Amino acid sequence: MLNTSRVGSSEIAQMLIPKHYIRFEHEDVIAYGELKGGQVAKLDGGLFDNPEPTGDTFPLEAVKLLAPCEPSKVIAVGLNYLSHLGGREPLEIPPIFLKLPTSIIGTGAPIVLPADAPATHYETEMVLVIGKKAKNVAVEDAHDYIFGVTCGNDVSARAWQKGDLQWFRAKGTDTFGPVGPAIATGIDYNDLQLEGRLNGDVVQRQRTSDLMHNCASIVNFVSRYATLIPGDVIFTGTPGSTKALNPGDTFEVELEGVGVLSNSVVRDEIS
Amino acid sequence: MLNTSRVGSSEIAQMLIPKHYIRFEHEDVIAYGELKGGQVAKLDGGLFDNPEPTGDTFPLEAVKLLAPCEPSKVIAVGLNYLSHLGGREPLEIPPIFLKLPTSIIGTGAPIVLPADAPATHYETEMVLVIGKKAKNVAVEDAHDYIFGVTCGNDVSARAWQKGDLQWFRAKGTDTFGPVGPAIATGIDYNDLQLEGRLNGDVVQRQRTSDLMHNCASIVNFVSRYATLIPGDVIFTGTPGSTKALNPGDTFEVELEGVGVLSNSVVRDEIS
Repeated sequence: MLNTSRVGSSEIAQMLIPKHYIRFEHEDVIAYGELKGGQVAKLDGGLFDNPEPTGDTFPLEAVKLLAPCEPSKVIAVGLNYLSHLGGREPLEIPPIFLKLPTSIIGTGAPIVLPADAPATHYETEMVLVIGKKAKNVAVEDAHDYIFGVTCGNDVSARAWQKGDLQWFRAKGTDTFGPVGPAIATGIDYNDLQLEGRLNGDVVQRQRTSDLMHNCASIVNFVSRYATLIPGDVIFTGTPGSTKALNPGDTFEVELEGVGVLSNSVVRDEIS
Repeated sequence: MLNTSRVGSSEIAQMLIPKHYIRFEHEDVIAYGELKGGQVAKLDGGLFDNPEPTGDTFPLEAVKLLAPCEPSKVIAVGLNYLSHLGGREPLEIPPIFLKLPTSIIGTGAPIVLPADAPATHYETEMVLVIGKKAKNVAVEDAHDYIFGVTCGNDVSARAWQKGDLQWFRAKGTDTFGPVGPAIATGIDYNDLQLEGRLNGDVVQRQRTSDLMHNCASIVNFVSRYATLIPGDVIFTGTPGSTKALNPGDTFEVELEGVGVLSNSVVRDEIS
């Protein structure tokens, strides 16, 4: 039996076998699947209930990738890399804000800027996916509640963020929460390279070991107030500086060992 | 056929028959029901899909009332009665913030103040319940998307609201969103008396006709950015001034023609 009492969480992670889970649509059926060597092994039932393979497999190219989970809430941490603070003082407690489940899209889906949206920035982030109901979770137990991690883009309309009473439309607008392509488990999420690319140019790059409030602290803090439910996601913060997305742009978020989240940008002419 | 083109929404409402819908638990089964003369007529299936009565009826006393719907999101409007502004300027657009689905409780359930919560205030409110998927809804169509209204208490931890970057724990903590007891349809929600009582004493009273951003404007504004889904709720704002809730208190919100939402207050000793 593995004695975990003398090893850190990152050492445990290194002993685990990385797995990659996706949610996909194939011939009008939506399901979870495990991604292995370019093949999708379809799973039976919910991702957080130890699903078994159905035996059906499809080539990755034959399925449409969806957001890898369906969160009941979308939590986010602000100001969590020193490189993003621009001289502001770090906050003692994780500064939390909320996005909306309806803001979530998967890789390949377009980010739609509302017709009246001001300059709207990308924010390259690592996203935690909760795997077990979590309330008042101790820091040392938090890794048990983190199912895995995925890539996220915390799309942010800056003038609304500055001018509105709260960040509802700045952060919560439909399509402002791209996540994916897969949820990776069995990797050391406390030390991964995170990279953002605007039309192929690297515009953000940092390691998740530079998070000021680390994953365990975030889950501890949030779960003191709000019960987390399997599938809930937590955007952990963006490094460096950000710029506006414009129609025609493509933004990619790559997280080491996880994959690449890629979304194009369009402007909504309807609203 | 009723010609609705020449009558206002409030005149239409007056021609309708008021109905009251609840969600309840009875012998370990959770269901929606229609409340008629102290009897609960159990409904088959979802509240927003024209459910039919199953034929089962129970006395109201025999069931446990739950929150009358299960919102995927909990939207709220701040600063929406002149009496609550305390000299602040009214905002041109509805100032929106977010609570969390896990903050929702029904009538009879306790409001649990976290062990570290600062002074936490009641806020007596009317709550809109969305009945149809809503995106970019015009002001003049908004009443079609509002299924009905219920009572709400937008419980608010004031020091967190002031000191935190955003209002996540100030407004989104578990149990900070009491709603109920019933959803009323077929009533003129644009002119109802709203009353809040702390341990029986009236502490807030105003008519919903005094809302600065009315129900239709709110739905129009929110749906420009976030798609609303059946069962989503919108807290419309609180009138007058508010005070702290203390363990042992009972707070009641009464909305004319809807019912009384009653919640006791306890302090969580665990967190």
